Amino acid sequence: MRVTVSRKAHFNAAHRLYRREWSDERNQAVFGKCNNPNFHGHNYELIVSVTGEINPETGYVIDMKDLADIIFEEVEIAFDHKNLNLDVPDFENLIPTAENIVVVVWNKIRNRIDNSNDLEVTLYETPRNFVTFKG
Amino acid sequence: MRVTVSRKAHFNAAHRLYRREWSDERNQAVFGKCNNPNFHGHNYELIVSVTGEINPETGYVIDMKDLADIIFEEVEIAFDHKNLNLDVPDFENLIPTAENIVVVVWNKIRNRIDNSNDLEVTLYETPRNFVTFKG
Amino acid sequence: MRVTVSRKAHFNAAHRLYRREWSDERNQAVFGKCNNPNFHGHNYELIVSVTGEINPETGYVIDMKDLADIIFEEVEIAFDHKNLNLDVPDFENLIPTAENIVVVVWNKIRNRIDNSNDLEVTLYETPRNFVTFKG
Amino acid sequence: MRVTVSRKAHFNAAHRLYRREWSDERNQAVFGKCNNPNFHGHNYELIVSVTGEINPETGYVIDMKDLADIIFEEVEIAFDHKNLNLDVPDFENLIPTAENIVVVVWNKIRNRIDNSNDLEVTLYETPRNFVTFKG
Amino acid sequence: MRVTVSRKAHFNAAHRLYRREWSDERNQAVFGKCNNPNFHGHNYELIVSVTGEINPETGYVIDMKDLADIIFEEVEIAFDHKNLNLDVPDFENLIPTAENIVVVVWNKIRNRIDNSNDLEVTLYETPRNFVTFKG
Amino acid sequence: MRVTVSRKAHFNAAHRLYRREWSDERNQAVFGKCNNPNFHGHNYELIVSVTGEINPETGYVIDMKDLADIIFEEVEIAFDHKNLNLDVPDFENLIPTAENIVVVVWNKIRNRIDNSNDLEVTLYETPRNFVTFKG
Repeated sequence: MRVTVSRKAHFNAAHRLYRREWSDERNQAVFGKCNNPNFHGHNYELIVSVTGEINPETGYVIDMKDLADIIFEEVEIAFDHKNLNLDVPDFENLIPTAENIVVVVWNKIRNRIDNSNDLEVTLYETPRNFVTFKG
Repeated sequence: MRVTVSRKAHFNAAHRLYRREWSDERNQAVFGKCNNPNFHGHNYELIVSVTGEINPETGYVIDMKDLADIIFEEVEIAFDHKNLNLDVPDFENLIPTAENIVVVVWNKIRNRIDNSNDLEVTLYETPRNFVTFKG
Repeated sequence: MRVTVSRKAHFNAAHRLYRREWSDERNQAVFGKCNNPNFHGHNYELIVSVTGEINPETGYVIDMKDLADIIFEEVEIAFDHKNLNLDVPDFENLIPTAENIVVVVWNKIRNRIDNSNDLEVTLYETPRNFVTFKG
Repeated sequence: MRVTVSRKAHFNAAHRLYRREWSDERNQAVFGKCNNPNFHGHNYELIVSVTGEINPETGYVIDMKDLADIIFEEVEIAFDHKNLNLDVPDFENLIPTAENIVVVVWNKIRNRIDNSNDLEVTLYETPRNFVTFKG
Repeated sequence: MRVTVSRKAHFNAAHRLYRREWSDERNQAVFGKCNNPNFHGHNYELIVSVTGEINPETGYVIDMKDLADIIFEEVEIAFDHKNLNLDVPDFENLIPTAENIVVVVWNKIRNRIDNSNDLEVTLYETPRNFVTFKG
Repeated sequence: MRVTVSRKAHFNAAHRLYRREWSDERNQAVFGKCNNPNFHGHNYELIVSVTGEINPETGYVIDMKDLADIIFEEVEIAFDHKNLNLDVPDFENLIPTAENIVVVVWNKIRNRIDNSNDLEVTLYETPRNFVTFKG
């Protein structure tokens, strides 16, 4: 009886997509307006999903409040109202595309979830663009 | 050519999370404000997903109207505008957490869906908390 | 240059619609399934809107964080995970219809907002039913 | 490190569900009000999801802008503001149920996506009815 | 103590925007792809808002169920799964633009609402285009 | 017969809230985490509403496509994927709070709308914070 428990959260951040070692022309060709040198930003919406057995005593797979706390401690404190390129060490050498952000978030939360549980993270960069990582 | 057909529905209900055999202190420690003795409530949103072959004559996996009727008969009549703890026999000895509710709903609908089809149910307790069960 | 600033919040609560002095038959005829004696519940969504002049120094009509705090202190603490009929004194002698709830919320928040500002409150009882009060 | 990248799009179209070789009675019995001879219509919402390895240079699985262009060229130009039965050759001999539309859309986009990537398409016919095809 | 009570509803319909007495060229210039001779369609979402005094006995301005029934009888039966141009007499000599539809809906519902109450109707033609009429 | 026509649009941008002439301490006290020196960002959602008479020939108050073009030319080109503080001259000496942004947007669009029509603009900074300006 494995059930998936999902919790939504969000953070607001600035970012810029570019590779330091590329020329301005190449960065512009690949990343277009996402390469604006002064940054742009998003309201990122996050769905964190934990799959595991229901504890027969509590009826919980994981207490939603605990899951919300883990997301707050691992992601919101680190990313919210930040510049992902300049303020977040995870992206010092990693382009903060939605794909790379979702893998970073998954790794941060994976450390906090029991090994017997599966983890999936979905990240909305805009209401129309989103990415999912299952490990 | 297996396609998944999904239908949304909803019901409004009251519930309380607690174990009769536990002390008030332990119930409060585990279930917090969800343990309010006078109950609280939610607008539950439900997504029922049936996966099967497309019938080449009708172009349907299952008629959405039939699926809506099954949800109405099995879930809405039983749960809508009810107190899950007091009015619904399924939860007489089962804590009505989102995880337990989604399993109960899955079982009720499983009986009404052709065996060759797969079934998945997602239940939103709030817009930010939801659970999924695939059997 | 009067601008309206709006903040969303939510609370989950149980309620029952009935008049103590009416017969069961009359309560059932008027309130139907909302009259379930064991209560039912909702995820109430709230939009609180304050209209006033922009402060030229801060660029704010009201700091959204302050507005969120006022809603938390006046409404969420009082109503969230509560039974409106049994746990909230405002509804001891007032039926907790959406219309009555929105007026109670408006009065609680009105006390905390500067007199030069206008106040409007919208309350969603379900995603399809909502009410608005402007004072 | 396979990540799923999803992009939403939409198109507005008219359609009618019926089989030419069936009697009016049988069409009415099976398709009900969806069989209106003068058609009805929907705002179809589409989610196209591509799963593949992150390119370590760009941080992209697929450029969202390229994915949006593929959807525009393959689906929006062909279906938007059209009558699916009369204006779209794919449905000349295929009933435009949500199930059949999602398979047609999947095939059109599959041709444009790299073979090493997986493809899933979800189509909302209404906010409460949707279908998914994974190939 | 005037409160506004709002109820959402929806209907799915086909339509075409054109003036019979205009040339094809002029219709195409003014209405563009909305002039497709074979029609296109939408999931129309409707919000009907009634403003009036709270009845001190019931706590209602208007019973939401009665309001839902009025919308069903006046609008859904007449418009749902219909071709607005061909199946709905109101649009025999009136172009079914969102603006014209919302005025027609307002008039149909106005007849059913007590004169002491105000009425406002909002109609979403798509999630991004909507119109409002207050009489 | 004045009807309001509304169109949604969006732009993604970075910003920082602070007054150059204030000390770091005062900026931090007033603007909190919105004062991050490296900026943060949002997916801004915009609703532009034009109220006027229905043109009896076209059934339009204003062609939604024209309104979408005006929003694109006046707002999206200027603000999308930009740093509001550094890239947008309107905010060279104006703090880009939601309140100030909505007034700037209103003024840009007011110039393009016929004088006989009324204009209202709503700006969502996040799904839970939004502002409205009517002139």
